Amino acid sequence: MNKKRLDSVLTEMRMNGIPQMLVTDPLAIFYLTGSYIEPGERFLGVYLNNEGNYKLFINQLFVVPEELDIDKLWYSDTDDCMRMVSDFTDHTLPLGVDKMLQARFLLPLMEQKAGTAYINGSKCLDTARARKDEEEQARMRRASQLNDEAMTRLQRRIREDVSEKELAEELVGIYRELGADGLSFEPIIAFGGNGAEGHHATDGTRLKEGDCIVVDIGCKKDGYCADMTRTFFFKKTEDQYRKIYETVLRANEAAEALIRPGIRFCDLDAAARDVIGQAGYGEYFTHRLGHSIGLEVHEAGDVSSANFNIVQPGMTFSIEPGIYLPGEVGVRIEDLVLVKENGCEVLNQFTKQLLIVE
Amino acid sequence: MNKKRLDSVLTEMRMNGIPQMLVTDPLAIFYLTGSYIEPGERFLGVYLNNEGNYKLFINQLFVVPEELDIDKLWYSDTDDCMRMVSDFTDHTLPLGVDKMLQARFLLPLMEQKAGTAYINGSKCLDTARARKDEEEQARMRRASQLNDEAMTRLQRRIREDVSEKELAEELVGIYRELGADGLSFEPIIAFGGNGAEGHHATDGTRLKEGDCIVVDIGCKKDGYCADMTRTFFFKKTEDQYRKIYETVLRANEAAEALIRPGIRFCDLDAAARDVIGQAGYGEYFTHRLGHSIGLEVHEAGDVSSANFNIVQPGMTFSIEPGIYLPGEVGVRIEDLVLVKENGCEVLNQFTKQLLIVE
Repeated sequence: MNKKRLDSVLTEMRMNGIPQMLVTDPLAIFYLTGSYIEPGERFLGVYLNNEGNYKLFINQLFVVPEELDIDKLWYSDTDDCMRMVSDFTDHTLPLGVDKMLQARFLLPLMEQKAGTAYINGSKCLDTARARKDEEEQARMRRASQLNDEAMTRLQRRIREDVSEKELAEELVGIYRELGADGLSFEPIIAFGGNGAEGHHATDGTRLKEGDCIVVDIGCKKDGYCADMTRTFFFKKTEDQYRKIYETVLRANEAAEALIRPGIRFCDLDAAARDVIGQAGYGEYFTHRLGHSIGLEVHEAGDVSSANFNIVQPGMTFSIEPGIYLPGEVGVRIEDLVLVKENGCEVLNQFTKQLLIVE
Repeated sequence: MNKKRLDSVLTEMRMNGIPQMLVTDPLAIFYLTGSYIEPGERFLGVYLNNEGNYKLFINQLFVVPEELDIDKLWYSDTDDCMRMVSDFTDHTLPLGVDKMLQARFLLPLMEQKAGTAYINGSKCLDTARARKDEEEQARMRRASQLNDEAMTRLQRRIREDVSEKELAEELVGIYRELGADGLSFEPIIAFGGNGAEGHHATDGTRLKEGDCIVVDIGCKKDGYCADMTRTFFFKKTEDQYRKIYETVLRANEAAEALIRPGIRFCDLDAAARDVIGQAGYGEYFTHRLGHSIGLEVHEAGDVSSANFNIVQPGMTFSIEPGIYLPGEVGVRIEDLVLVKENGCEVLNQFTKQLLIVE
């Protein structure tokens, strides 16, 4: 059990009036315990309360790493697990539950009157997880280093007539060679007009001269996610596309230059949007500037005009402005950043200069 | 909306005392409507009631296929979607919900008093989905045909020193060439002693002479899942392993020969287990004989000693006996079967004879 992380969750619980909570998201359990267990359709949960007590409810079929040093209550497939949980909760207090807790677990808990009320308490975990500690920062850095190297190797494989899907499959091999643990999301590789689709599903389209090449990729390493986008052009490009590229790059750099504790997420979004708007492409920047990232590729909190929250040290998120001319071209340049006391550390080192791949 | 499937779900709802229900599993919605929509973290639900009314609650951001001809209630990210749902439900009746419905949706529904009680109604969908109709049967058949062909191509690629992971990655390319829509589960490719692990995580182990090669693979096609296992040996094998192979094959065939409407799932499990027990390997057959399959690779209902239910026409499930000598060898032979009026159709045609791959 990671005491520091536990304490930050308990602090959030107190601030949100949640005296006891059942944490069931396997990633939240990994965050608290350091052990990832995939429960499949079975129940897995950590009970926490404000007095600092905690307990893991776990099926006997699960293989548990030795270092998982939390007190366990084992159940078998024939036990009434939700009764065991509700025998343990304080029936005179409200019970926080994870937003993902499924009806097949929540309804039996309610039948057993496990709490006086049931509160979606995920915010407590989300808030704690948003500020990465030193170990998490090191892992985020490492995942992005691998992603930089993967981008370098993938870029070398760009060739006439290759298909988006073929490059995406080669990327899987590259991540394996590099010792990554897998993908953090399905890679987006989009040529030409496909690059203008917000979340293009990588397909059999083949590369031809003059195409833009949007490469939005990420791996996982030791539980943490990378996510980076670079846009190349194949053999040649046009003046208008160069202008678009330079505009997106300036938007990316303008936002990154502003990042420091105390600034609001919406201010970052506005800074990038201003650059693109002034260049006359405002209507073609069709999405928010970025999203939080960590154990999940999209975590709670985004970099958008609707988020008035303040940037805090230890937060990690993406900065990914883009300009998309439907049917024609798309350019997106995305880095991950880590907020430091006096600014930010950009986690990606792969060049952002315009590359015309031969 | 598929009226026949809707009717079979409504029949199950009546039999289970559920007058209205909110179906939220995207695969259950696909089953009813023919359209698959991935809701991500947003709400997507079909409301059904016993009078045959139905309605789809859907976010404006979702791209909806034109053929989705169900009445829709659109909501935006700023609407209170769960209030819209509860404005629609009958507050004087119990409300069935999907077992997967998450707390962040269920708790607001309860706050709005959307029903007098909340019932896990997934059984109604599971029961209807277990009996595949003609269109589903054709899709199951097609997915398994592709899987047979993929096994043929993959077997040709088995070679000295190849790693499990390399073969697994080549399989992805094979499925793509064949026009499959993706994997139905992460392939299990296990050499030698790894073959004795129940669910071996395919790794960097390299193939050597005398190894068994367990290949447990499946693709998806048009929404439906394939799943087949064959076990090969590389260059040579021993008499004991031949005996194990022949025993597993006889167990597979003994169970398949019994399948017809009216027999119990537990009887199939017992038939296979008897063959293996009589050969002296009873303690090394460590799992149930099979599982139901369809839109999901594991659906409700298994082929085990604990399932006293009766086999019905249209059901599809796996028959996959195995013998595992820890650290040494594993042999599993798995087919999918479709229950017919007078017996069963085995959906896999790839040979079950012992193959020594050179």
